[in-house]
Amino acid sequence: MPESPGRVLPDPAQWTCPAPLRDHPRVVMGHGGGGALSAELVRHVFAPAYGGPVLAGLGDSAEITLGGARLAFSTDTFVVRPLFFPGGTIGDLAVNGTVNDLAMSGARAAYLSCGFILEEGVEIAAVARAAGALGEAARTAGVEVVTGDTKVVEAGHGDGIFINTSGIGLIPPGVDLRPQRVRPGDAVIVSGEIGLHGVAVMSVREGLEFGVEIESDCAALGGLVETMLAVTPELHVLRDPTRGGLAAALNEIAAGSGTGVLIREDDVPVPPAVANACAILGLDPFYVANEGKLVAFVPREHADAVLDAMRAHPLGARAAVIGEAVESHPGMVVARTGLGGTRVVDLPIGEQLPRIC
Amino acid sequence: MPESPGRVLPDPAQWTCPAPLRDHPRVVMGHGGGGALSAELVRHVFAPAYGGPVLAGLGDSAEITLGGARLAFSTDTFVVRPLFFPGGTIGDLAVNGTVNDLAMSGARAAYLSCGFILEEGVEIAAVARAAGALGEAARTAGVEVVTGDTKVVEAGHGDGIFINTSGIGLIPPGVDLRPQRVRPGDAVIVSGEIGLHGVAVMSVREGLEFGVEIESDCAALGGLVETMLAVTPELHVLRDPTRGGLAAALNEIAAGSGTGVLIREDDVPVPPAVANACAILGLDPFYVANEGKLVAFVPREHADAVLDAMRAHPLGARAAVIGEAVESHPGMVVARTGLGGTRVVDLPIGEQLPRIC
Repeated sequence: MPESPGRVLPDPAQWTCPAPLRDHPRVVMGHGGGGALSAELVRHVFAPAYGGPVLAGLGDSAEITLGGARLAFSTDTFVVRPLFFPGGTIGDLAVNGTVNDLAMSGARAAYLSCGFILEEGVEIAAVARAAGALGEAARTAGVEVVTGDTKVVEAGHGDGIFINTSGIGLIPPGVDLRPQRVRPGDAVIVSGEIGLHGVAVMSVREGLEFGVEIESDCAALGGLVETMLAVTPELHVLRDPTRGGLAAALNEIAAGSGTGVLIREDDVPVPPAVANACAILGLDPFYVANEGKLVAFVPREHADAVLDAMRAHPLGARAAVIGEAVESHPGMVVARTGLGGTRVVDLPIGEQLPRIC
Repeated sequence: MPESPGRVLPDPAQWTCPAPLRDHPRVVMGHGGGGALSAELVRHVFAPAYGGPVLAGLGDSAEITLGGARLAFSTDTFVVRPLFFPGGTIGDLAVNGTVNDLAMSGARAAYLSCGFILEEGVEIAAVARAAGALGEAARTAGVEVVTGDTKVVEAGHGDGIFINTSGIGLIPPGVDLRPQRVRPGDAVIVSGEIGLHGVAVMSVREGLEFGVEIESDCAALGGLVETMLAVTPELHVLRDPTRGGLAAALNEIAAGSGTGVLIREDDVPVPPAVANACAILGLDPFYVANEGKLVAFVPREHADAVLDAMRAHPLGARAAVIGEAVESHPGMVVARTGLGGTRVVDLPIGEQLPRIC
């Protein structure tokens, strides 16, 4: 890290990568999409300013040690629009998002912080509804909100309610989940049907109807992860496919592991309603956000037992093996299509659906 | 806590306290002011929804135990306007605010999270300047940013840059700082001149000039607190007088301790420039926010030694004993004026200066 980098303002023209940011002297919506543009912002702006070795790991949560305890620590800010949608609200999303980031380290969330930014004029009843959903989700996940903060900004300088949650949990001994542990041959397992959260939010935001109501899958995954770790602590990596969907999660793992990832499109559980909605909207379900799903890379010899355990859990009933880690095309995700062809599943640049979480 | 309180929406008309919130079915700026309105929101909306025993402590940070480690955990969201002001920026404010909340538990901040909400269209250079200041402040405070998140909202739905930081630190053995430990006779010590941060932000926001430039006192107090605890771990309570100023901090301690607080107005260090600016603006310096000061309640027998140690530290050079805890008027803060009279120093209702941090 250069000395006192805070004093040096970045000059996009000097960046040597083929950076879309180069063309963006100002922030665009895609910088919040969890894809390539978000990664650019981290690499060129945040990491040089304050990044250390832990942040460089860029996992869903950070692993830290304090007072001899091995902890996972994570933060997430929620700006979903609308605040209330089929299957969830910004409140339960704020709990489950952070609880799930911790769960991806194998940690059961223990304590949460909660910071609200309220826009002047928002109804107290709306704040109470979001807070109530937050409380219920916390009780369901078995996590305690222990510290909070509230700020108010003038009307027209916010958007109703924004919520940040940060969380801490204990990582069990012997558990070590990170992309670097992935090995060719690992089974790629997804815990259930994909695309529900993004399509649910989009449908109410845009007033679309798809014949059946699609509900967000927003849920806390700590219990499911415990079930999986009880089969074997030898899981290699877990990731929850939120912004950027399954495609972004698999690409992050492929990039971090140095192996390739091959998935079979027909084995990925996409509910018909999501497939139809995506066809109408011109979206790819692989890129649509989920809030109650995980993808796991599991050593081949444990794959069947882990899959069985997942299917016995309510949040893993539709779990499926969708592919495997491979030696070929390292760092790249390739999908085998139903017709026997292959296509590259790229990291998205920005976001198909802004403000989805 | 009532069962499933999330399902019951609060009806302000049913509240039995003399609540200003009653008259506010919608959020007003004062709900973010750290005064009585903020407390109402916590008591009537947040605590019933998700409050547990730790949150009920309502300290600057929560004390939690995880894996055998005794930790302080705190969160703060920063919406200061403008983003850059004399003596600081939103970036260093975001570090020092949370580091100081932890320091008030006696904990040295170890790890920070950092969540940005960016408004579409804000210059990348402004984001980089804030991030750079954040990084420098973290290095100065000896804290590592280990996890982060970035969201983007459409132009007109945010205000440039909002930052949430959450922090974790280890509480040293034998240290137990909380209002309940205050005893009549405790010396009340303030670490230096008050009112600088609020007046500095106000001056640039409103384009005011007061003859001399007033700079924010934004600074990390972890080192000063360590110096004080080295004299004696028997300090009773610490608080950093941010939103709501010295008045709010003393009122929170008085309310939590059940003792009264008597301060001598003439002994409170108010810089002449702050006094002049406050006179012009119609503000009371006791209610103006600070970002690099603390107030300490210290057992009488240790007061001289603690004061000497503070004065030997760069951030405590102007430390002063300003009063004491008293048996009379429990829960109330009273100031003895220069003319020998007394006045009640109340908890502010809302905020004199909105969006000061």
